[in-house]
Amino acid sequence: MPLDKNTFAHLNFNDSGLIPAIIQSSETGRVLMMAWMNHESLSQSIELGETVFWSRSRSELWHKGATSGNTQHIVSIETDCDADTLLIKVRENGPACHTGSESCFDVQTIYISSDEETDD
Amino acid sequence: MPLDKNTFAHLNFNDSGLIPAIIQSSETGRVLMMAWMNHESLSQSIELGETVFWSRSRSELWHKGATSGNTQHIVSIETDCDADTLLIKVRENGPACHTGSESCFDVQTIYISSDEETDD
Repeated sequence: MPLDKNTFAHLNFNDSGLIPAIIQSSETGRVLMMAWMNHESLSQSIELGETVFWSRSRSELWHKGATSGNTQHIVSIETDCDADTLLIKVRENGPACHTGSESCFDVQTIYISSDEETDD
Repeated sequence: MPLDKNTFAHLNFNDSGLIPAIIQSSETGRVLMMAWMNHESLSQSIELGETVFWSRSRSELWHKGATSGNTQHIVSIETDCDADTLLIKVRENGPACHTGSESCFDVQTIYISSDEETDD
């Protein structure tokens, strides 16, 4: 690999031609972000070896880190059992989040099991 | 916590009233699956302390593991920076996937970086 683009011809893009991509650090296992890809951004990701998303708000391709330098080198791309979600493991060259946080999920925890709570 | 349901009033559900939920094992860090929640399934998840999704194909609430026993005990629920995706860490009582695999992402790897390839 890299594989031929036809390798992902079986993917189930949604009615808008998009598929969600979960981005996980290959080094820490941390989930960094979730973004969307279309056929073209997935093709470009494979060609570049770096994540390229489809920005739904700007309606344009978005090469992650192209301006900030915080690119994501793709280690692997997996599909799930119904081929409608991607799991992309990356080695990240900086924070994933525009806020400067390592992960976009650093923002807010809305629930913690009472089993996990400490007494302090 | 558990927190009041109003804690997630700020979440950005999509036009169909859904929000994607990434399910990650709290023990192994493995991403197990991605599914969708609506307001009701998120409420029930917090009340039960187990994942309850919205099945888009069956248009009904889906208490994960209710029949198989492969429930997912919720450890924490986090939101991302734009509050339109959930990251739910769970302790799973069995395989996440209907195929019997630990993860729904055990199915197919469509790309591996040439950096990661071995010579065997």
